[in-house]
Amino acid sequence: MKIVQKLVTLKAKPRGFHLITHEILEHLPELREFEAGTAHLFLMHTSASLTINENADPSVRHDFLAFTDRLVPENEPYYTHTLEGSEDMPAHIKSSLYGNFLVIPINNGQFVFGTWQGIYLCEHRDFAGNRKVYITLMGV
Amino acid sequence: MKIVQKLVTLKAKPRGFHLITHEILEHLPELREFEAGTAHLFLMHTSASLTINENADPSVRHDFLAFTDRLVPENEPYYTHTLEGSEDMPAHIKSSLYGNFLVIPINNGQFVFGTWQGIYLCEHRDFAGNRKVYITLMGV
Amino acid sequence: MKIVQKLVTLKAKPRGFHLITHEILEHLPELREFEAGTAHLFLMHTSASLTINENADPSVRHDFLAFTDRLVPENEPYYTHTLEGSEDMPAHIKSSLYGNFLVIPINNGQFVFGTWQGIYLCEHRDFAGNRKVYITLMGV
Repeated sequence: MKIVQKLVTLKAKPRGFHLITHEILEHLPELREFEAGTAHLFLMHTSASLTINENADPSVRHDFLAFTDRLVPENEPYYTHTLEGSEDMPAHIKSSLYGNFLVIPINNGQFVFGTWQGIYLCEHRDFAGNRKVYITLMGV
Repeated sequence: MKIVQKLVTLKAKPRGFHLITHEILEHLPELREFEAGTAHLFLMHTSASLTINENADPSVRHDFLAFTDRLVPENEPYYTHTLEGSEDMPAHIKSSLYGNFLVIPINNGQFVFGTWQGIYLCEHRDFAGNRKVYITLMGV
Repeated sequence: MKIVQKLVTLKAKPRGFHLITHEILEHLPELREFEAGTAHLFLMHTSASLTINENADPSVRHDFLAFTDRLVPENEPYYTHTLEGSEDMPAHIKSSLYGNFLVIPINNGQFVFGTWQGIYLCEHRDFAGNRKVYITLMGV
């Protein structure tokens, strides 16, 4: 049984849903050393999310953004947390609706994904900087 | 410390929220061999979800479907990912809102559940086939 | 490799979003014994949630409640699960939208959190009692 932990820094991205499977894998050569186990990806922020979804057609990510901006609108009259920009409070809510962590199975040195699965970084702020993901690989 | 991994195939189900605790347990006789640990259930699809909710009254699952279909409507004029059916893009969004994986504690050879907890498969497509769940048991 | 499991009882709270990082840590002196690993927090209920979000400004938790009560309204005419109070069915839905479990990295005897991250208990019922969280620490 072994554990590898590392802090991965993702490059800054515009507001939107971004496929980051390759960016994550570039930082994880250690994955090959695991025969079986799990990978825990933990985003260290409260205004972005990690989720797993369709890895092929950019129109899916486009529609995710369009839907999510309507689901959690800006400038609602009942918002009281408004000092950090009109998209700040919505970003906190979106962060928790999609969630800030993933657990992905590892088998034979690779993530176990269905054919169409990839990792999304959901960036809910307009001008966010780099985003940190703390990764824990556990297994044999 | 030991790990058991297996791929479980769930029978095809109609669009809706389905209690699958027993179907999962039927595939997991290995659970009895764990004194303490966790079970990771990872759905290998992007148009269905796994969640934990009320295990007794079918009206809860009925209302989950009615609410979720209103929360993420079909045929929104701003959707661009529309070639695979009117419920396809909504299914992707619902998949990420409820999430595609669970982690459940194991103690004394069983899932640790509250009295009213059960596992739901949330099927967001109209004519989906079997669904694959990749399960990792880890513990002692 | 070692595992610690324990059942933690959180004091009853009013409907709303509550920062519980300190209440959880008070029950987890065992955390200091782990150099590296993960903590799994599993809420044993179907009408409350656990999520990670902003740990500083109470206005964020206020707005979370205001938004969430609008996202999942009470007394919708199509609800059929209505015998246990008008906020019961919405509480089940909110529980699954935010989710009932967390996995948090452990390093050097502590949770690995970003500067602004804390643990929320999201209490979706009006008169809930104590809430049970089953915690599994796994690592070295």
